[in-house]
Amino acid sequence: MQRYTKTGGEIWDMEKSQSPRMGSVILGVDGGAGNTVCVCIPAAMPFADPLPVLSRAVAGCSNHNSVGEDKARETLERVMAQALLKARRRRSNVCAVCLAVAGVNHPIDQQRMLDWLREIFPSHVKLFVENDAVAALASGTMGKLHGCVLIAGTGTIAYGFTRDGREARAAGAGPVLGDWGSAYGISAQALTAVVRAYDGRGPETALTNSILDFLGLASPDELIGWTYEDQSWARIADLLPVVVESAEAGDEVANKILHNSVGELASSVKAVVQRLELSGEDGKDHFPLVMVGKVLMANKRWDIGKEVIDCVTKTYPGAYPIHPKVEPAVGAALLAWNAVASELDGSPRTVA
Amino acid sequence: MQRYTKTGGEIWDMEKSQSPRMGSVILGVDGGAGNTVCVCIPAAMPFADPLPVLSRAVAGCSNHNSVGEDKARETLERVMAQALLKARRRRSNVCAVCLAVAGVNHPIDQQRMLDWLREIFPSHVKLFVENDAVAALASGTMGKLHGCVLIAGTGTIAYGFTRDGREARAAGAGPVLGDWGSAYGISAQALTAVVRAYDGRGPETALTNSILDFLGLASPDELIGWTYEDQSWARIADLLPVVVESAEAGDEVANKILHNSVGELASSVKAVVQRLELSGEDGKDHFPLVMVGKVLMANKRWDIGKEVIDCVTKTYPGAYPIHPKVEPAVGAALLAWNAVASELDGSPRTVA
Repeated sequence: MQRYTKTGGEIWDMEKSQSPRMGSVILGVDGGAGNTVCVCIPAAMPFADPLPVLSRAVAGCSNHNSVGEDKARETLERVMAQALLKARRRRSNVCAVCLAVAGVNHPIDQQRMLDWLREIFPSHVKLFVENDAVAALASGTMGKLHGCVLIAGTGTIAYGFTRDGREARAAGAGPVLGDWGSAYGISAQALTAVVRAYDGRGPETALTNSILDFLGLASPDELIGWTYEDQSWARIADLLPVVVESAEAGDEVANKILHNSVGELASSVKAVVQRLELSGEDGKDHFPLVMVGKVLMANKRWDIGKEVIDCVTKTYPGAYPIHPKVEPAVGAALLAWNAVASELDGSPRTVA
Repeated sequence: MQRYTKTGGEIWDMEKSQSPRMGSVILGVDGGAGNTVCVCIPAAMPFADPLPVLSRAVAGCSNHNSVGEDKARETLERVMAQALLKARRRRSNVCAVCLAVAGVNHPIDQQRMLDWLREIFPSHVKLFVENDAVAALASGTMGKLHGCVLIAGTGTIAYGFTRDGREARAAGAGPVLGDWGSAYGISAQALTAVVRAYDGRGPETALTNSILDFLGLASPDELIGWTYEDQSWARIADLLPVVVESAEAGDEVANKILHNSVGELASSVKAVVQRLELSGEDGKDHFPLVMVGKVLMANKRWDIGKEVIDCVTKTYPGAYPIHPKVEPAVGAALLAWNAVASELDGSPRTVA
């Protein structure tokens, strides 16, 4: 593999050897904590069900905070080239790109990514750079940036948009900065409860046996070595099902942790809704509440997602929950498609 | 530098070129999260004030969980050789060694360290391996293993011993496992409070301006990048003075964080005291409560250490607080000295 330079010219050598099809396309990229997905959809898109996804490519992590900027950009550029190759298109076919990547937390991050994207795509191509949470919202709203999305997987974030383009977020800053409703947060609290029960600071809990069994450890002493060994968030977050099972079996400590998690997640949503006044002046306006991530999957008796919705709708009865049927990368593509279409209609929201 | 092998024979080459003084000595080693200190004291020690420390050597971190076992052992062996060299003694002068190192959390850790130490020192040398908290206790009790020590620096742990050699600990498992009373815990909660105030999940707080000023950042958004940059506990724990100042200036959020910290630290002490029944059957027996670490230093109006003592003595009026005058490495040496002396008296507590 050649070394990646500012923009990886050699990545696009594929365009020379290809006899492309006709037709404009849109690229949607979702770069989460784990991997990066790029989909290619036709720009002249009939609203069919299922959506006509021309191609899909997958690559590693593209969060610049985790892997560094060079590596993140190389991953993004390669995954876009691969999606185009699979769809038998070239860059000249592309009319819009939406890059929704974790780690875009600041207008400076956003502008730097836009500048870099502009070196790859000519000036008539519409470019959008967003936090990956925005793609998750769009995956539930068919590309419309309106409403609130709650993501609760390994990490958690709430992100919202008004119809006139104002946006707000809550949480999403990682465990050091208090994302306690996530699978990581739930699992870390469960581990803490086991240590506290063991050393006499906290009540006995069935989590002790369930977690030690799950990890194949003999004593809570060994948890210290286990956490030091590899402090990756995903590894700790994998304890989520054990906590849910213990709560379902009636363990009070586990139940308390899940109730805390519901409170944390609902408070993120409510903070966004309140700041954006998504529920209108009378507090009853309808708005989409898109629910994404393994913590919110309704596959258990202890249904965290349902509890969060109940908690939010008590304050904001107009929130209508959506569990998206398409993946966030498709959401990103729909967002670009929708923005291009709106622009033709004279909508105010355009980026770059 | 030669590569370190199982025991670093070349480290002891210094013994060949040296004309040693006479007299038995004891080595005390304190290996904390930051560095490792070794002191050498005479075995026939008059209880003078100040204590007759023959030499002192300092090296880097020797927590095997942080730097790996090889590196930890090399650091320990070198720092002991250096202390002996400075005191103009050889290993043949050594009658006892006490190694008190962070990361010794399990009898297996302890036995492995004892086996390794035995390869360096012949069978008549008394060897002791303990968690570094034990050296901190001994630094307040002149080497007697009785009472409870509370350490609250970057991390926190409570450790206690009964007169008949039973021991117990609480906390000390790191932030993932809930050490919330430490300087790291206090600082992480303060950072979280700033993010929560910013995104609307929590109340406004003066911590926002004080922390941003202290770190030279313009907006709470930038805290995410700042924490990702380097997640070392010590770097985050350095915010402690900012939190204390904000609390002293009357900020409610900062005050709540410090009160939480007091509750957490006192609960660690109480868990240890209760499990060991240090306060006797009537709950009024006297026992030392040794207070160590920057969180507990009484140098501010908001005196966390004093609040913890008040909280503990409400439940256990016999606890008498001690702020040690010697460093933990001297505590480790005194522990070995005391154990050797006790053994001559027929005391039950001997190790290896």
